[in-house]
Amino acid sequence: MKLKYAIIGAGAIGGYYGGRLAHAGNEVHFLFHSEYDYVKIHGLQVDSVMGDFSVSPINAYKSTSDMPACDVVIVALKSTQNIHLKEMLAPLLHENSVVVLIQNGLGLEEELSAVYPDTTIMGGMAFICSSRVGQGHIAHIDYGPLTVGVHQHPQEHLLSQMKTDFERAKVPLFIAPDLKVARWKKIVWNIPYNGLTVALDTATDVIMKTSSSRQLVKDMMEEVLAGARACGAVIEHEFVNNMLEMTDKMKPYSPSMKLDFDNGRQMEIRAIYSNPIRMAKQNGFYMQKVEMLEQQLLFIQSEMDKKNSKNMRS
Amino acid sequence: MKLKYAIIGAGAIGGYYGGRLAHAGNEVHFLFHSEYDYVKIHGLQVDSVMGDFSVSPINAYKSTSDMPACDVVIVALKSTQNIHLKEMLAPLLHENSVVVLIQNGLGLEEELSAVYPDTTIMGGMAFICSSRVGQGHIAHIDYGPLTVGVHQHPQEHLLSQMKTDFERAKVPLFIAPDLKVARWKKIVWNIPYNGLTVALDTATDVIMKTSSSRQLVKDMMEEVLAGARACGAVIEHEFVNNMLEMTDKMKPYSPSMKLDFDNGRQMEIRAIYSNPIRMAKQNGFYMQKVEMLEQQLLFIQSEMDKKNSKNMRS
Repeated sequence: MKLKYAIIGAGAIGGYYGGRLAHAGNEVHFLFHSEYDYVKIHGLQVDSVMGDFSVSPINAYKSTSDMPACDVVIVALKSTQNIHLKEMLAPLLHENSVVVLIQNGLGLEEELSAVYPDTTIMGGMAFICSSRVGQGHIAHIDYGPLTVGVHQHPQEHLLSQMKTDFERAKVPLFIAPDLKVARWKKIVWNIPYNGLTVALDTATDVIMKTSSSRQLVKDMMEEVLAGARACGAVIEHEFVNNMLEMTDKMKPYSPSMKLDFDNGRQMEIRAIYSNPIRMAKQNGFYMQKVEMLEQQLLFIQSEMDKKNSKNMRS
Repeated sequence: MKLKYAIIGAGAIGGYYGGRLAHAGNEVHFLFHSEYDYVKIHGLQVDSVMGDFSVSPINAYKSTSDMPACDVVIVALKSTQNIHLKEMLAPLLHENSVVVLIQNGLGLEEELSAVYPDTTIMGGMAFICSSRVGQGHIAHIDYGPLTVGVHQHPQEHLLSQMKTDFERAKVPLFIAPDLKVARWKKIVWNIPYNGLTVALDTATDVIMKTSSSRQLVKDMMEEVLAGARACGAVIEHEFVNNMLEMTDKMKPYSPSMKLDFDNGRQMEIRAIYSNPIRMAKQNGFYMQKVEMLEQQLLFIQSEMDKKNSKNMRS
């Protein structure tokens, strides 16, 4: 059986994984937005540390309603776009399709499950440094593995075929035994660093070298662990120290939310902050410092929105 | 009996109250720092909504060691200067002197008590809009009352004489029955607005008009009330709504810490944040959001210090 893939959101992440799959000979259909006209003519170019390649011609579309139903639908949109997801996915799904959300934060699979209760839904976490450097042009700087986990209606056979396809395409695919734990683990890092680099307008290394902000990061990580535990996702305390040590060793880094902030784009506050805060509260734990960071980020987003609408008027 | 007054820190607050007392005929001795040479020649000028006046000649000093012992020593320094207070006060105190700390925050009377356990110590809270507009030149925009309370060793007779002197000098003097409650009440406002206008780089009115930051202010006020209660200072919950409503009616306002931040000066983090957090913790209550704001302010101060030392080197 050959799987048919759809990539919704062919940016730095979706473009890379979809590009790898297509380059390895799989049938991949890509949804583009502003880049459609360009890639239709020039294809997709990936400059990779593992060797450059291009996908040309490419199965490019402007709307999912023009795309065929696919077996694996990979969603690599920013989560701020998920309000459109129900409508976008409808033409792509057949009875046995699997949707994989390669997105930041928590609660997104649950939201999708509410509108597609019978579909196989998985979550994906990319461990990769890649960025969009121009029209239809992606630079892959480092790493690349993808970790996926099942949210509902597992399909063992299809998942094993996916793993074969990805690994033949030079993408190590790990299968998380518990998606909930994997998602919470990821936000143990994302919650402090994404928001604090924005709120303090700085980079990870400065945060780590200043005792007060280093302690704040640790406090927030421990709060997230307690929130996770309340939700039934048990993460051992040692994980906090591992994350701190890993960050100490990293080069100065701007998390995705800081890049969004610097470029005046919508920040993923709901998925990374509001959803986890709500889920922990519903299970009896109040993540106070995390909520304070959410409140500050909502303020900052509101000021950005005012500025953007002023620029649009003038 | 005529009281002899000393003013330590003759800026916008100390200069105003001391100037009023001197103008009304009291004996007042002023400690100046950088303005000494100027005021020695030109005196002190106060432009007041209640009528302008000047104090010239003025009893001005560069060091407290040149000043006479006084009955009432008013300290209106920024609390960041209090490390020098023990030494500065020594020449000014006689057996029955009273020291009044007109300063922001909590725990400063306790610190002074540790080095002067037998001295009468009071706290003062100014309700005034005044600012230093030039050398030896203060503008008094609005309000003016002073509230004082006794920390240790009350002297009824002296306090009643002080009240007479101040009110003859057109300064309403209120006596707080419980200094601890009065100090905590003041920081219910100071804690959210001082720090958040810095951390979010904004003014009070923008904070109040944005739902997330308005909620954060309310959360922090309620946390301060809980901290106060743990320390034995009971403030009724209605006070939170009163403070919010008062702030809604205020003109856009930059609290003192925001002015310090904008001008690259030391912020009063210890007195307004660290001391209250510690006192509440010692009494079993953890003010989590207040602590997070302290951690952010310490980070911001550390970045300011780096910038200042870079400017000094270049």
